[in-house]
Amino acid sequence: MKKLIIASTSTVYGGTYLDYLLPELEKHFSSCKEILFIPYARPGGISHDGYTENVRLAFAKINKSVKGLHEFESQSFGTEAAIRNAEGIFTGGGNTFVLVNELYRNGVMEVLADVLNQGTPYLGTSAGSNITGLTMQTTNDMPIVYPPSFKTLGLLPFNLNPHYLDADAQSKHMGETRETRIKEFHEYNRTPVLGLREGSWLEVNGEEIVLKGNLSARLFRQDEMPTELETGSDLSWIK
Amino acid sequence: MKKLIIASTSTVYGGTYLDYLLPELEKHFSSCKEILFIPYARPGGISHDGYTENVRLAFAKINKSVKGLHEFESQSFGTEAAIRNAEGIFTGGGNTFVLVNELYRNGVMEVLADVLNQGTPYLGTSAGSNITGLTMQTTNDMPIVYPPSFKTLGLLPFNLNPHYLDADAQSKHMGETRETRIKEFHEYNRTPVLGLREGSWLEVNGEEIVLKGNLSARLFRQDEMPTELETGSDLSWIK
Repeated sequence: MKKLIIASTSTVYGGTYLDYLLPELEKHFSSCKEILFIPYARPGGISHDGYTENVRLAFAKINKSVKGLHEFESQSFGTEAAIRNAEGIFTGGGNTFVLVNELYRNGVMEVLADVLNQGTPYLGTSAGSNITGLTMQTTNDMPIVYPPSFKTLGLLPFNLNPHYLDADAQSKHMGETRETRIKEFHEYNRTPVLGLREGSWLEVNGEEIVLKGNLSARLFRQDEMPTELETGSDLSWIK
Repeated sequence: MKKLIIASTSTVYGGTYLDYLLPELEKHFSSCKEILFIPYARPGGISHDGYTENVRLAFAKINKSVKGLHEFESQSFGTEAAIRNAEGIFTGGGNTFVLVNELYRNGVMEVLADVLNQGTPYLGTSAGSNITGLTMQTTNDMPIVYPPSFKTLGLLPFNLNPHYLDADAQSKHMGETRETRIKEFHEYNRTPVLGLREGSWLEVNGEEIVLKGNLSARLFRQDEMPTELETGSDLSWIK
């Protein structure tokens, strides 16, 4: 049975890394002593070791140890086995193209989907949340590497837009708003898209999907007007 | 000899479509009665016909007629011949992934590079500017379709980031700034990136590249601090 926390962001304004989620994570990962961290998205170009160290410091606050998936790349044990054996898994944010490319390069996209469908507790933030949807095609990130496919884990029957940002009516910038970009996505794709604002997350238990945090989320469907979904609502009907 | 105007945006705040550029375009396209318009980027999902009509209205103000490249797709004449025979070419903005995908699907990426290198006058705005760089990897757009390659026309020895946006110090949004995204690009690529603010454009004559408009542009190079380049400066040294 799936057991996922899918968060828009790791860090809310004025907060520290993961702090707003720690009470949730303590419950979510209650069965785990050690978390396997997937550092591949490398925010700001940070090294895998450096990123893993940041995550280690955050999880130490709830008494979890952390191993980075990259540590298994050179071992006979291997990344696939590391994922199969993990008690709990966290994929952090950064660049979604880099993350997806590395998951394919290491041949672990399928096994990751497999263990998460079977119930390994999972946390995703930002890019790590993006990959839980059907495709990564509603990411905000730059295509700085060319992945073999945009297909992702498909743990949700829709796509996500993390860090969802409402249009700023005061702005003089003429670039596309987030809403316009998602509308363009729907010219070519039927997949619903959930715009998840910073501070919001999805709690997934089996087929149940509930919106958490203080804010509403914005749902975009092909040929329909976007709608606001209130926090606490059941989203398992979206497909 | 290349003869290009490469603009950050088609429309500046408070203006109408292409109006701020029309005096330049009148000179730039002085040898052309008809402009071939490439509508493939489809901003906001507009149809090829609708987009071409908007461009027709703008170019009518400087007495140019306009044909859309899509009009040749079903003709024996073909898109490749249309590009070879064009007096002048304009590629409009929209989604860069869609634009690049359509250029490859129609097999015209190479012939377009060819005629532009040989001197057919060209205007690009936004996505239509993005494709003049070495790759489309510093676009701001969503990957709503999966193009066969990120490689683009290579008319410039660097990449562009159109609609370049400075970080807003007041913002409480935790998503990456444009500068952070370009820094991440440089973790994987050596290609210099020019952040072109709205209202700026490059004027390319042969190997000469000059920054035009009222604003400075921001140059990003791997392992270096970004620098500001003043309007009017020669940028042909960047590679």
